[in-house]
Amino acid sequence: MSTPIRAVVWNEFVHEKEHEAVKRIYPEGMHRVIAEALEQTGDFTVQTATLEEPEHGLTKEVLEKAQILYWWGHIAHDKVKDEIVERVKQRVLEGMGLVVLHSGHFSKIFRTLMGTTCSLKWREAAEKERIWVIEPSHPIAMGLPLQEGGYFEIPHEEMYGERFEIPNPEELVFLSWFQGGEVFRSGCCWTRGAGKIFYFRPGHEAYPTYYNKTVQIILANAGRWAAERVRIPDQCPNSPALEPLPPPPAEFGQAGVIQTLEDIQ
Amino acid sequence: MSTPIRAVVWNEFVHEKEHEAVKRIYPEGMHRVIAEALEQTGDFTVQTATLEEPEHGLTKEVLEKAQILYWWGHIAHDKVKDEIVERVKQRVLEGMGLVVLHSGHFSKIFRTLMGTTCSLKWREAAEKERIWVIEPSHPIAMGLPLQEGGYFEIPHEEMYGERFEIPNPEELVFLSWFQGGEVFRSGCCWTRGAGKIFYFRPGHEAYPTYYNKTVQIILANAGRWAAERVRIPDQCPNSPALEPLPPPPAEFGQAGVIQTLEDIQ
Amino acid sequence: MSTPIRAVVWNEFVHEKEHEAVKRIYPEGMHRVIAEALEQTGDFTVQTATLEEPEHGLTKEVLEKAQILYWWGHIAHDKVKDEIVERVKQRVLEGMGLVVLHSGHFSKIFRTLMGTTCSLKWREAAEKERIWVIEPSHPIAMGLPLQEGGYFEIPHEEMYGERFEIPNPEELVFLSWFQGGEVFRSGCCWTRGAGKIFYFRPGHEAYPTYYNKTVQIILANAGRWAAERVRIPDQCPNSPALEPLPPPPAEFGQAGVIQTLEDIQ
Amino acid sequence: MSTPIRAVVWNEFVHEKEHEAVKRIYPEGMHRVIAEALEQTGDFTVQTATLEEPEHGLTKEVLEKAQILYWWGHIAHDKVKDEIVERVKQRVLEGMGLVVLHSGHFSKIFRTLMGTTCSLKWREAAEKERIWVIEPSHPIAMGLPLQEGGYFEIPHEEMYGERFEIPNPEELVFLSWFQGGEVFRSGCCWTRGAGKIFYFRPGHEAYPTYYNKTVQIILANAGRWAAERVRIPDQCPNSPALEPLPPPPAEFGQAGVIQTLEDIQ
Repeated sequence: MSTPIRAVVWNEFVHEKEHEAVKRIYPEGMHRVIAEALEQTGDFTVQTATLEEPEHGLTKEVLEKAQILYWWGHIAHDKVKDEIVERVKQRVLEGMGLVVLHSGHFSKIFRTLMGTTCSLKWREAAEKERIWVIEPSHPIAMGLPLQEGGYFEIPHEEMYGERFEIPNPEELVFLSWFQGGEVFRSGCCWTRGAGKIFYFRPGHEAYPTYYNKTVQIILANAGRWAAERVRIPDQCPNSPALEPLPPPPAEFGQAGVIQTLEDIQ
Repeated sequence: MSTPIRAVVWNEFVHEKEHEAVKRIYPEGMHRVIAEALEQTGDFTVQTATLEEPEHGLTKEVLEKAQILYWWGHIAHDKVKDEIVERVKQRVLEGMGLVVLHSGHFSKIFRTLMGTTCSLKWREAAEKERIWVIEPSHPIAMGLPLQEGGYFEIPHEEMYGERFEIPNPEELVFLSWFQGGEVFRSGCCWTRGAGKIFYFRPGHEAYPTYYNKTVQIILANAGRWAAERVRIPDQCPNSPALEPLPPPPAEFGQAGVIQTLEDIQ
Repeated sequence: MSTPIRAVVWNEFVHEKEHEAVKRIYPEGMHRVIAEALEQTGDFTVQTATLEEPEHGLTKEVLEKAQILYWWGHIAHDKVKDEIVERVKQRVLEGMGLVVLHSGHFSKIFRTLMGTTCSLKWREAAEKERIWVIEPSHPIAMGLPLQEGGYFEIPHEEMYGERFEIPNPEELVFLSWFQGGEVFRSGCCWTRGAGKIFYFRPGHEAYPTYYNKTVQIILANAGRWAAERVRIPDQCPNSPALEPLPPPPAEFGQAGVIQTLEDIQ
Repeated sequence: MSTPIRAVVWNEFVHEKEHEAVKRIYPEGMHRVIAEALEQTGDFTVQTATLEEPEHGLTKEVLEKAQILYWWGHIAHDKVKDEIVERVKQRVLEGMGLVVLHSGHFSKIFRTLMGTTCSLKWREAAEKERIWVIEPSHPIAMGLPLQEGGYFEIPHEEMYGERFEIPNPEELVFLSWFQGGEVFRSGCCWTRGAGKIFYFRPGHEAYPTYYNKTVQIILANAGRWAAERVRIPDQCPNSPALEPLPPPPAEFGQAGVIQTLEDIQ
């Protein structure tokens, strides 16, 4: 039996304490529901972390061990400290996987990794979302209990509509159809540094989306797909020649400058 | 005759004042050589801007009009103010093109748009670089005076070697062979928001690379390819339904939160 | 004023002669309506070609001059001769642009360029299609008279639904929402050899889609985007070394075989 | 312990019988050396197949079970029967992985899956090839015994040079530097249908490349990465609406045609 994947589920954990309607659905927070779904697969050991913890629960020790990080945030994006965002970013670029959930599209960590605004259209109307599997052979789409034709439905969700302002995904796994007339790229993959990133659209706090069994399978698949397998530290080395070189012409001296990561940071 | 493209050539303009060897090659700065090359095509009106100017010469007025921005920086990346970087980034995402030159790989603007470290290997040995055209039908490769087989050479350049820590380019136009044994993705294209970005590797300050006629054609081609044609301001609107929706079930109220760019920024 | 783009609009031209309902809409054939739309922009000189003409109207002379080819086919895909398909393919790989329309997804020329089945779901129910612009800064999306939010509608169309079995598009310009519940990647870009390929979904023969002004602007934009700018003939040359090489060790002789395009074709 | 991957190694097996220099290196054929390397990992059960066998050894039964197919061909590409190529293609699109080796770039199966000419430059001079790892976190690059800096060398190889006429790879894992002055995209990944395809450059018949331990690790990694995990048969179904639709207007009847795979094939 293979070693379990070390996952961390991060949640700002604000709505569940401040809004009655949300508390009824997720009394212990969305992170607990997601964590339990991962644990039940037997493939993960899961830790949770929230905004209110010291260092938002994302200490160096926690991140050092994490192979995959799930991120849910919304109303408190700006309360996440920049130094923690930078720490998470560095771990992603070194190889830790990242699964960004729903309103996490506007999180600091997602926006800094994408380099774009990550804007979109939205509407809260508890409408039907039908999610089509566009790449049925992708690891994240394995084993889903789909309807005939290759889709599943979430009866009540917030709408997100295109133009979703992201870099063109390397792989597009899911596309959403909304009852109110919009479409959305709902399952998007990118590589940044040595890290794999997956954005998954559903998961508004006011609906019980994270109890949905198909959603839970997708989250576990995404964790398996993105989990760190090798760590590659950043470096920008001055490298000696591998082949013999003639001496440089006298008129071209060095500019007398040294470029290292320390110099420029 | 069509309207000229409005270009801005930005240069930190430090080496040319501080290092004799560089001053001899570019007495008025690299930006002036690049600007003149663009102007001579007849397709551009060119303005220059440097670090030492107020707001680094990149005022709102200047950026408002610019359709394409060229960026050369190296030793003074960290002296570029974050607010100016943010201003440039916003203009790129709205549609302004960006051509990042050589050591600009480590500039704040490039790194924030890429989301990665942009690290690489390097060596200053005045060695030969042979640049192969990988996509001969790409607009940036049009009209180049190539050697038989599809390459051109720069007799003395700094070496940059892979792994270049960037998101997978959408289009890879040039690949470099170095005398000392390395390879490099030397001409890379990305789209970020409505903006086109081109990274071009050659251009170390200690060598007369920007006088090279092939390099000059590439820079002009890149400007034509990336120049803004339409401006798309950022928005993240609450959108009414386009199709009739049933009333939401009583148990699913709104979470009582409003998500706008102002809220999260 | 710039030289007009030389376009050829190819249509199998069968439905318009055999089905009364189609003849009423396109009495002279869809190719004529498309050709006139292109001509009216002033940017194209247009020729048409149909299945029943000698060599399907796609002689060497016609293709030699063409910079962009539009392709509509459906019921007679298998009547298109393989040698003509091969001739068109070679011209695309050399640089001629190709715009594949609607049921042309199953044409021999599209399938051989994609390398995949190009299968999809479909339904003829005259339903509403809402087409969302996913890349508003793309040349093919320029100047479209869109509804607030960034879409346009075709009131009656055939449905095409995902999984559309294509290689991941390099650029995804349009996504369709269908009234009956499906989504589709409706505007897809690829590069093959020196040629640009655009697939555009709408255009069922039983509806007046090609009279739609927005569709007409898209077809003209696609022609401008994909039109050949440089021709690159195929070659697979034995190339002399550009750097001095040591003599090969005695034990490694050549295998005595010569690899040329003639050898393998 | 997990189930072994079912691999088939196909080789035209002509040079090894006809050229003394090749026979000395690979007396039983390159396929045997590759097969043994895969078997020694313990992760594969391997079958071989060659041109001279009935149906080239690629019967329906063999392909039915295969999860990954390796392909080496060169001088006899045109002797591979079109119906076998079509059978292999269908299996790849359904999900079977394909690893194309060296001169297999010109095989019928690779060209039909790519849709392009797959031409390149070449030279037989037993020169040094240095292979740089461009994506060190890619599964195909795991566990390689690399030199400081991230490369490995093959002391004597045939040169392949760009422009390699392929669709832009989805992932570019290796780049080659050649002693004679060229560069090449030596490890390229694509998805076609449900199948993963990997092209690996080294492996000229006149050199002992397939005995190289690093090459052997790459071949095993590629097999693990590309091996079929789910089979997705082709279909192009007429699909009923998932949402209620109004009756179509009287003037828009069906065109009276039915589009199925049988119709068009």
